[in-house]
Order: sequence, then C-alpha cells, then structure tokens
Amino acid sequence: MSYKTDAEIAHESPMRPIGEIAAKLGLDEAHISPYGHFKAKITPVKAFALPAKQGRLILVTAINPTPAGEGKTTVTIGLADALNRLGKNAVVAMREPSLGPVFGIKGGAAGGGYAQVLPMEDINLHFTGDFHAIGAANNLLAAMLDNHIYQGNALDIDPKRVLWRRAVDMNDRQLRNIIGGLGKPVDGVMRPDGFDITVASEVMAVFCLAQDLADLKNRLGNMLVAYSKSGAPVYARDLKAHGAMAALLKDAVKPNLVQTIEGTPALVHGGPFANIAHGCNSVIATRMAQHLGDYAITEAGFGADLGAEKFCDIKCRLAGLKPDAAVVVATVRALKYNGGVARADLGAENLEALQRGLPNLLKHIRNMKEVFGLPVVVALNRFVSDTDAELDVIQAACAEEGAAVALTEVWEKGGAGGEALAHAVIDAIAGQPNEFRFAYEENSSVADKIRAIAQKVYGAADVDFSSEALAEIAGLEKLGLDKLPVCMAKTQYSLSDDAKLLGCPTGFKLHVRGITVSAGAGFIVALCGNMMKMPGLPKAPAAEQIDVDEHGVIHGLF
Amino acid sequence: MSYKTDAEIAHESPMRPIGEIAAKLGLDEAHISPYGHFKAKITPVKAFALPAKQGRLILVTAINPTPAGEGKTTVTIGLADALNRLGKNAVVAMREPSLGPVFGIKGGAAGGGYAQVLPMEDINLHFTGDFHAIGAANNLLAAMLDNHIYQGNALDIDPKRVLWRRAVDMNDRQLRNIIGGLGKPVDGVMRPDGFDITVASEVMAVFCLAQDLADLKNRLGNMLVAYSKSGAPVYARDLKAHGAMAALLKDAVKPNLVQTIEGTPALVHGGPFANIAHGCNSVIATRMAQHLGDYAITEAGFGADLGAEKFCDIKCRLAGLKPDAAVVVATVRALKYNGGVARADLGAENLEALQRGLPNLLKHIRNMKEVFGLPVVVALNRFVSDTDAELDVIQAACAEEGAAVALTEVWEKGGAGGEALAHAVIDAIAGQPNEFRFAYEENSSVADKIRAIAQKVYGAADVDFSSEALAEIAGLEKLGLDKLPVCMAKTQYSLSDDAKLLGCPTGFKLHVRGITVSAGAGFIVALCGNMMKMPGLPKAPAAEQIDVDEHGVIHGLF
Repeated sequence: MSYKTDAEIAHESPMRPIGEIAAKLGLDEAHISPYGHFKAKITPVKAFALPAKQGRLILVTAINPTPAGEGKTTVTIGLADALNRLGKNAVVAMREPSLGPVFGIKGGAAGGGYAQVLPMEDINLHFTGDFHAIGAANNLLAAMLDNHIYQGNALDIDPKRVLWRRAVDMNDRQLRNIIGGLGKPVDGVMRPDGFDITVASEVMAVFCLAQDLADLKNRLGNMLVAYSKSGAPVYARDLKAHGAMAALLKDAVKPNLVQTIEGTPALVHGGPFANIAHGCNSVIATRMAQHLGDYAITEAGFGADLGAEKFCDIKCRLAGLKPDAAVVVATVRALKYNGGVARADLGAENLEALQRGLPNLLKHIRNMKEVFGLPVVVALNRFVSDTDAELDVIQAACAEEGAAVALTEVWEKGGAGGEALAHAVIDAIAGQPNEFRFAYEENSSVADKIRAIAQKVYGAADVDFSSEALAEIAGLEKLGLDKLPVCMAKTQYSLSDDAKLLGCPTGFKLHVRGITVSAGAGFIVALCGNMMKMPGLPKAPAAEQIDVDEHGVIHGLF
Repeated sequence: MSYKTDAEIAHESPMRPIGEIAAKLGLDEAHISPYGHFKAKITPVKAFALPAKQGRLILVTAINPTPAGEGKTTVTIGLADALNRLGKNAVVAMREPSLGPVFGIKGGAAGGGYAQVLPMEDINLHFTGDFHAIGAANNLLAAMLDNHIYQGNALDIDPKRVLWRRAVDMNDRQLRNIIGGLGKPVDGVMRPDGFDITVASEVMAVFCLAQDLADLKNRLGNMLVAYSKSGAPVYARDLKAHGAMAALLKDAVKPNLVQTIEGTPALVHGGPFANIAHGCNSVIATRMAQHLGDYAITEAGFGADLGAEKFCDIKCRLAGLKPDAAVVVATVRALKYNGGVARADLGAENLEALQRGLPNLLKHIRNMKEVFGLPVVVALNRFVSDTDAELDVIQAACAEEGAAVALTEVWEKGGAGGEALAHAVIDAIAGQPNEFRFAYEENSSVADKIRAIAQKVYGAADVDFSSEALAEIAGLEKLGLDKLPVCMAKTQYSLSDDAKLLGCPTGFKLHVRGITVSAGAGFIVALCGNMMKMPGLPKAPAAEQIDVDEHGVIHGLF
C-alpha cells in the first residue's frame, strides 16, 4: 500500500481565500490583516470587541512520546474538523513550527495526512515572521546589554554573570558556546556567550503568556538578564530595552489565522519549548479561539506529564483559563514500545507488551482526572497493524479507569476519522464532572511545588535537590521571585527523569540539578538533566534535499 | 520655526488601500499578495507578463555625503511624486532599510518630510520579512558548512580558511569577532568566526542582482565559502545548500509595493551595502518599475563616485539595464562643508567656501556625462539658510558644465517642490545625448579595471596595490574569477581613499589593500581601507527611546 506524502496531500488540497475562513469566525476585513491570500493576522482588540462565544476549551495531550509517533497534532486538527462536520463551531489553536528543525531531521510540523493546516510550506518556513521578530527582540536586548558594558557599564554588570544569551532560528551547534567581543578594543568586551534556538528564548515564553501588548511589554521589562558584580539583579527594564522589543513584536503578537484541509479556522501562534518553557501556543490565540468559537481545540507539547501539567499549572493559571476536557492521545504501537518492544517489531500483535505499556496511558488518564479534575477522553489513533485484540485490551482498561475511548483515523480520513472522538468529547463534557484545579499552590515554597508535581504527576517517591539547586532557590527567595509556578525541564520520554524508564515507573527519585527563573514569563525552571537549547544538524541534513523550482514551488519539504 | 517630525507627518498622512496603488500600475489582485492593507508583494512572473511600458530609468545620485545631509532619498521620492503631478506615470524603486541602524543612531530610512514612503514604521522595522529571510539563508549555509566539518569534513575544508560568516540584522559589535564551537566535542569544531550585519551578506548582494528565482539559486550556488586544506575552492553548491537557501528566499525575491505620501507606487526591495556591495535596490524591482511605469526613479548609495559608478558598472552591466539620465543631488550647505566650513557655521553665507567645495559637484557631473555618457540634471535641494547669491554661484557653474539645475523643496512641499526638477529631467532626456557606457571593460585585468575607476572616476593619479592584493588577484586569475566587474570598497566621504580629502582632490594615489570575490553576486571587491561590516550601538542607542503603546502605535522612531 502506498500513501501520499503530506506535501502531496497539501498540494492537492484547494485552499479557500482567508477572508472566507475569517468569515466563519464572524470576522470581516476590518478585523484581519492578510499576509498573502491564505494567511492573515487577527487584530486582538477588534476581535475581542465582538460578542464572546465563551467556547469550550479542549486540551489535546498524549502519553509519553516514543519513536513510534503518536499523532497529537493530527488528532488536534482532526478533532476540530470532526466537530465542524457535526455542525459545531470549532477552532484550532496550535503552535507555530520552528524553522531550525525543518532543515534538520524533523521536517515540517503542521499536522499530517488529511489532518493538516495549510499552506504547509509557508507555515513551516517564515510564516508571518513571528519567530524572526522574536529573535530580533532577543538579539536587540543582547546587543544593548553588551553595549551597556562596553560604554562604561553604569549598572556594573558582571560579564561572567550575564544570563541573557543570543538567539537564531537555526539548528547550529557551532553557536552553543562561543567567546564574543574578541578583536580590538572597539570590538566589544570579551566574555563567554552562546546562542539558543529562537524558540528556547524567554522572549518566546513571554510572547506566549502575554495577555496583550501592554502585558507583553511589562513582562519583557521583568526579564532577569544579568547580575551586577555586587550580586544585584539586572532586568531588561534597567537597560531600557523593553519598549523597543515590544515595538518589534507589535504585529507578531497578533494571532495568525490559517485553515485546515477541511477549511476549519486554525490559529497558529507562538511555539515555546516544552521543557524549559511551557510548550503551548499563545494565550492570546487560545483566548481568541474560545472567544470566536464554540469549541477551542488546543494541544500541549510532549506527553501529559510535561505538556498538560504546564498547560494547567502555568498557562491556565497565569491566563485565568479553565479547560473543559482533556484528550489523551495514544497508539497501540507506542504502548507496546512502552512495554519494551523494539521499534522494528511494533507491527506484530503483542498483548503482553501492551499490558506492560498500558500503565503509562492509565497514569496520564488518572493525572488528568484526579490531579487536575478534568473529564478525560482517550483518542486511540489507529494504525493498520493494530489488531482487534489489542484495541480491546486498551478499551477495557480505559473503561475501568473511567475514561471514554474513541478510535481515530484522522491522518487517513481527516475529520471523518475523528467523529467518534468528537462525540466522545461532547459526551464527556456533558457527563463527567469538571473540577479543574492545579497540582500545587503557587505560594508554596519552591521545593514543595516541585515535590507536588513529582509525586502527584510523575509518581516519584521523593525529590533530590542538588546543593546548587538549593542555593539557587535561596537566591530566588531573596529576590522575591519564588512565588511563581514551576516549569519542569526533564526528559519527555519517561514519567521519571531517566529517559529509559518507560511505562509507569514507581519508587524513583526525581533529581533537580539546578533552578533558574524566567522572571518575565513568570515561572521558575527546575532543571532535571541537561536541556538542549540549541539542536544540531544531522550528517545528511534535510536541507540538502529541499529545493525550489523556477515557479516558486518547494520540493523536498515533508 | 518649528517643523513636524517625519513620524508626525507620516502618521497624519492617510494611506490608500494597497490594491488602489497596484491598480495604478495595471495590477489587480491576481498579481499581488497583500501584507496587511498597505503593503504587498508583486509576483514577478505575473507582472512581467503584462505589456511592457519600457519606462525611462532615472538614477538619483549625489555629491560625496557630508554630515550636513543632502536628501537623496527625499529627492528620489519627490521627483517621482512631481512627475505624477505632471501626469506622467512614475514609479519609485528604492532600497529597504536595515533594522540594525534603526536602533542605533540613524533612525528610519524611508525618506523624510513630505517625501516619504508609507507605512514608515513597518518599512523601517520588519517590513515584509525580506531581510530576515536573507539572514536565515545566510545562517543556514553557515550551519551546513560547520556541520559538514563536524560530521567528517569530506570536502577537507580548512577551518582557518572559512570565508563565510554569520549574519544578524542588528548593530552588535560584540559579534564582530568570535570563537565558535567551544564546549564539548559534540558542540562543533572550534574556529574563529564572526557576524556581519545582514545587509553586508553576499546573500543580499546576490538577492539584489538576481534576474529571477532560478538565477538567484544559481548565484547562491556559486558563492565561494571556503578553501580546502589543499587550497581548492569550496562553493555553496558543494554543500548542497543553495536549493534550501533559495526556498527560504522564494517570497522575499518578490518586490514590495508601498506608496509615497502622495500615492505614488514605490517598489522598496533589497538593500546591499554600498561599499563592499553595489548599494542599489534589487534588479527585479528596477526592471519591474520600468516595465510598469513610464518613469522609474531609483537611487544608489553614497555619492556618485561609489553609488552611481557601481549602479552603472555592476548593476546595469550585469542586468542589461540602460539608464536615461542621472540626477545629482547637492545642497549649498554640503558644498560649503566640502569647502572647509565647520558644521556649526553652515547656516551663514560663505561664497568663498562654496567656490572651494563646488568642484566636488562639478567632478560628479563630469563623471556622469563624460565617463558614463548620461544626460545630467543637478537637484539643488534647498534649505532655508541658502542665500540667492549662493544659489546663483552653483547655477552658473553647473550651466558652464552643461548640466541643468533645478531647485527642489520636496522635504517641505512633497511633489510640488520637485516639479522644476521633473521638468528639467524630462527636458534633459529629450535634449541631451545619451551615450551610456561603462567606465571599463569587464574582461580587462583586475588591476586595469581598478585603475580605470580610480583615474577616470575618482581623479587619482595612480593606484598602489599591496602585496596581499596582488597575491589575491593572482589567486582569482587561477580560479578564473577575474573577469568580473569590480566593486570598490572605500570611504564615501571623499573621492579619494582618505575621508578627510574633501572637495575635488587631485594627484592622490588610491591604495588597494586587499581583494576578495563575491563569486555568486558576480563581482570582485577591492578593499581600500577597513570596511566596517558590523556597526555598533552608540552610548545612548535610539532603541532606548523607542516604545509602543497599548494600541500598537510606535513612538520614538524617526
């Protein structure tokens, strides 16, 4: 059996003019700024002036990711398409892809099969320029900081305690660690430095948590960028950088409107890392999807332990959002992988391995229900190799856990393959209690907050803090920056901090090696392991295959 | 007397929907992609399919720049507005401003007073993202090159002979000289490196000289990026980078359409450095302006010795363009400055100093007429402090030189202040001979080409080549890259290579210190002095004053 590629499907799918998509949301020309004929930015103040629909907010999350792939983004898109097929007014709110990985291994990130957002090449490349604007704002601050040191250093910034790094939207390991300011005396001040990929910048996290442009500017000003030689904190505000940074972001902060293959409106906006940041699209886009649609379908990065937890404890808390249900995406293959089956053998029925892997799914279901108080539906994303016996095992176990299960085939069938899920979601919202709550109180101590996440959400027996982490916590307490939610930076592959512990490990200790603060974004980051903030290219980068012909048609981008 | 700021004038000027501006050029919705309501990109293949107007091509250039300011961009815009007031169908073709200098000293670069292009904040900030795309393409190549070395270095690239540098669109002296690839073995390969401002990238030069997307890709592939340890040249093509780079540039390469305050269509596209590159807007935009308008008004960077010479010898030669006339912009104040008057004293009448400075203007007039064979009109950009006696001196001298002089007041009056100039240009085209030619043959030796420019255009007695330059010329001859036009990189402030020699120096030697090649752009660069490819920020950067309010209105950007 031969399938079409995502790019082939995307190219064959006719797009509607973006004005037609906007009209589905009740928006006319005055509410949007077109970017070409199939993309637009929505002006928030105008869109929020329309009557509020107060749409239901559905979070799509997943089991811990595996190399087998789960299809969270396709389910997000397919669920919205399905709801629209049922006559509901559903809107997608999802992240923008980063340019860097497109040229590495990963390829595009705009859904797949018949559950894609279009125009896929544009979305995967520069889109409307948001990430470039974020990178420019990041680098303006860096240039102003180094210029401040160079021009006399009135704030007495310690060149060895500069926290702020530069950014580029490219996979470029060469820039992870550099020494800058070499050359002659006029060429700056020699100091260690480095670049992160733009999506790892705190500007991205701030961008995605801001309520509006004024809030964005204020948060940018609050970013902690360095310490003085006497240990005093230096904020972006002290460098008078936040006004110009916000000016650079004034258009980027407007949500981008595109369409799914089936013409569902999709707000694709922002894309922070899911480990050192919260991994969800912008608050403005989510609120706008709820404002303009009866159902807002959104997703969070990685598995539910990282993505959904941060969605609830960071994004919803800071933005005052209340989700109505959680969809947990799983596949037979990924659960078998969690049960110890090698990737090459995932096609064969293996009920024992499935039983071993299932606890991973059940733990995430329990977390969403019991820790966060949400109605839960499992989206079992079907593959050709799945057997009925395997599907039965999962359905029985989920039923016992009190979660509805819906088979989905959105990659192959688009919205039609998501109708069962759509019905299950509608039923779950109507039938299950919603007692949405957080996993911890933000006014607890930093250690208690981390312990609550580790024990309640991850199933850890205890938390071990390094001496560095304890000292850093004490530092935050001194600065009064400890009463913030905590953003856990740990491996996405396991509920624990050991990527190899699949399934549902218990009795383990979580090791917190370091603590940093994103004071502008408004969260504390707990580092459990080394987080890669600048990926590299593989031996044969995808870029080598990407080409454009004389008609402007791109080839080799999947 | 108190004048409004450029920003105030821009904010008060109502804009027409960009579709109306496009319609003036015979373009409908199918020819353009809107970027918001007041910007659009024109699809070249569609626009060039329309009947060709074969418009007259008018180059606006100037005397050597001085701190007094000459107003070349305002004259370019005002001349087009004036021609339209006279019922002609004129189009502006000009450069896009770089983001970096906006945050430094310079402020905006979209004209001034009542001769501006709008929307000025957008044009000065991200505009349609072209420069971000160029930066991304530059940095993709850099990442692929370092990744190639890291992943085994099949091409045997010498890490100490990498020519390609990274780029960022920011004034950031800290990045001029860096060591990259520090850290652990997985963090790349340690080597000296550095960043240039994006506009100094060869990608920008290639972008501006490309005839179309296919030509762009081919030129990108031809860029010389490194030498192997055995001395063999390594091109971007060898790294298989040019296809993906062209894909990143597929939309950027489409000219941007905006409007002047008076509603004249303006193609604002590309902006390479005027020293190490050719300093003109894109060839595609210039050709399109001629295709769609009866008059295409374009400008070149710096004074006529650098800008106009490169416009003729590089851009027109490589693109097969034939200009119809040259306008040389001068002011009484700038000529007095050339005559030795301090900046603070330029307001007072000083006929002697004017007489001393006048030869600078006369030399440029002679160059345009005798070296390049073009009809010449002098635009005398009027200031309040100019006296009639001073204006008379200039007019008499120009008349003797056979050049018409028109007083312009476009800053204060817009197109109405440029009508005399418009009439003079129309008359010059009709009445003066046009024997357009180049200053040298591209198949001459590199030394002979440089000598021709130095002696004919600059008025040098001779040229002195450093031993490094001679060795580099020999290297180019070996690679077969010597039969290209030469791009002179020298100070813009003097006809010589000594910035302090004002007026019209004679008997001097031009010192060529080094030779490089931009093999993709298609020119050889002769370095006469140190060229700054990465500016720095001043002690109090303009960025500190730039702000955006909660309505998205930018303040402090002039």
